[in-house]
Amino acid sequence: MKTFLECVPCFVGQALKAVRLVSDDEKIQEGVLRAALAAAAKMDFSVSPPVMGQQIHRIIRDLLENEDPYFDIKQRSNAVILELYPELKARVDSSKDPFETAVRLAIAGNIIDYAVNTDLEETEILQVIEDALKTPSPLLRLDEFRRAITQANKILYLADNAGEIVLDRLLLEQLPREKVTFVVRGFAVINDATRTDAQETGITELVEVIDNGSGVPGTILETCSDDFRRRFNEADVIIAKGQGNYETLNDVDREIFFLFKVKCPVIVRDTGEELGNMVLQKSSVSNYKGVREMPA
Amino acid sequence: MKTFLECVPCFVGQALKAVRLVSDDEKIQEGVLRAALAAAAKMDFSVSPPVMGQQIHRIIRDLLENEDPYFDIKQRSNAVILELYPELKARVDSSKDPFETAVRLAIAGNIIDYAVNTDLEETEILQVIEDALKTPSPLLRLDEFRRAITQANKILYLADNAGEIVLDRLLLEQLPREKVTFVVRGFAVINDATRTDAQETGITELVEVIDNGSGVPGTILETCSDDFRRRFNEADVIIAKGQGNYETLNDVDREIFFLFKVKCPVIVRDTGEELGNMVLQKSSVSNYKGVREMPA
Repeated sequence: MKTFLECVPCFVGQALKAVRLVSDDEKIQEGVLRAALAAAAKMDFSVSPPVMGQQIHRIIRDLLENEDPYFDIKQRSNAVILELYPELKARVDSSKDPFETAVRLAIAGNIIDYAVNTDLEETEILQVIEDALKTPSPLLRLDEFRRAITQANKILYLADNAGEIVLDRLLLEQLPREKVTFVVRGFAVINDATRTDAQETGITELVEVIDNGSGVPGTILETCSDDFRRRFNEADVIIAKGQGNYETLNDVDREIFFLFKVKCPVIVRDTGEELGNMVLQKSSVSNYKGVREMPA
Repeated sequence: MKTFLECVPCFVGQALKAVRLVSDDEKIQEGVLRAALAAAAKMDFSVSPPVMGQQIHRIIRDLLENEDPYFDIKQRSNAVILELYPELKARVDSSKDPFETAVRLAIAGNIIDYAVNTDLEETEILQVIEDALKTPSPLLRLDEFRRAITQANKILYLADNAGEIVLDRLLLEQLPREKVTFVVRGFAVINDATRTDAQETGITELVEVIDNGSGVPGTILETCSDDFRRRFNEADVIIAKGQGNYETLNDVDREIFFLFKVKCPVIVRDTGEELGNMVLQKSSVSNYKGVREMPA
């Protein structure tokens, strides 16, 4: 997906909110804001929005001289959702359709996104989880998703954010674990999950975990490691969590199941879904021929 | 008032919305967006927000090669509110306290601000007008305002937007007309009222109308004409409409009555009022010693 003009004011707002999460120093905040404005003024709008997310995070890291300024926030997100885990696990297990319940919870978890929802409160997370379980709207592609998983030999599960991955774990527990590889980001970027988060939430003990070798808050194949791209090519089913993965992979020429919450007007227009909706969407193309090589 | 960091993403969003009101050409829209980003990156944040509003409007004018791109929008705003005028005039005249009713309508009119509310619908304007008449909340400074007007010899009424000035006319009709001077902007900027709008809405036939010699969507005294500054110094009562006039005059060392709708979180914090509230506020200082000279 390209960057739309209305993404740009949002980037600038996100840059300011993101730095304010990790620094009270108004000089640092102003520095990040000015650098984000200058970067946005020169940005190539043909690339997808997460490219700018990566740039903004680089600016924040450089000005703070901290490689992972959101480390504490990620730790807190994991801890908060891990506390809910036993009860949610029991609700999945006792539900009429544990697979569907787990899918709904995994999508609900996508609300924990500090790129967009910087002022997210714990009560809001709980509300979104409750709504996800109660919502009467059907997930349109659920049966197709279930069937694809049953038939698959290699399932690649692309994670999104810390905290959210605890709810991904509930879905991982419903999948044929030996066939699943869980993919985290290669480098810290905003609150996106890295290997540390997968370890802390017990996912490394559950399924194979790899990182994608990239620090984009999404999945731009050209920036990922060779190993990841090989896995991407070989997988029968790809599950991609979150808006960032959707924005970077929705034009990629292969079948992908996208699970995310609709969090901005551009995605509303692109998907035809309403703001806040839970989406289980399949990319329409399935004649995938492998990853384009990065231009030299 | 200085520019707060959170004003900046809003400027960028305003620039995009403003150009989209007057051009469907995506190349022009992108050009305005990039120029606004570059300008914001270098902006002096110690100046008030309307300075950036003026810069953005200059960018739009230059790229469109049109000195008054909002001319049609202003004409339509005037026409829409003029159609309501006879009924509203009757409601003022038949109300228990015509002065208060007129004050409420003049404040309600401040919703017609295409700098902030670019997607304003006519139904919303009507709703705000109805709410203004129904609202049970008292206007705290109303009696003081009434008294100041009764005692004044020279009243300066600083207008804000086209369309809105039709509702200002209702208040002008409640004032001692021979003592009132109505002030419009010197040059077109967004949908701010200029002399043409005062003529179209019958205000030039009602009271003396001057312009301030400036093209800022607010009142920065140093950018105004000598004649306006003399009037500003001589007036007993100054009535300033709108957020732009508030943002540029609230630190000026003299007594001013500000009438506006609260339209952004920064003004919420600054005034202690809630978003959408109608405000009749008096600046706290009254030992005004004249306009600072502009630095050479």
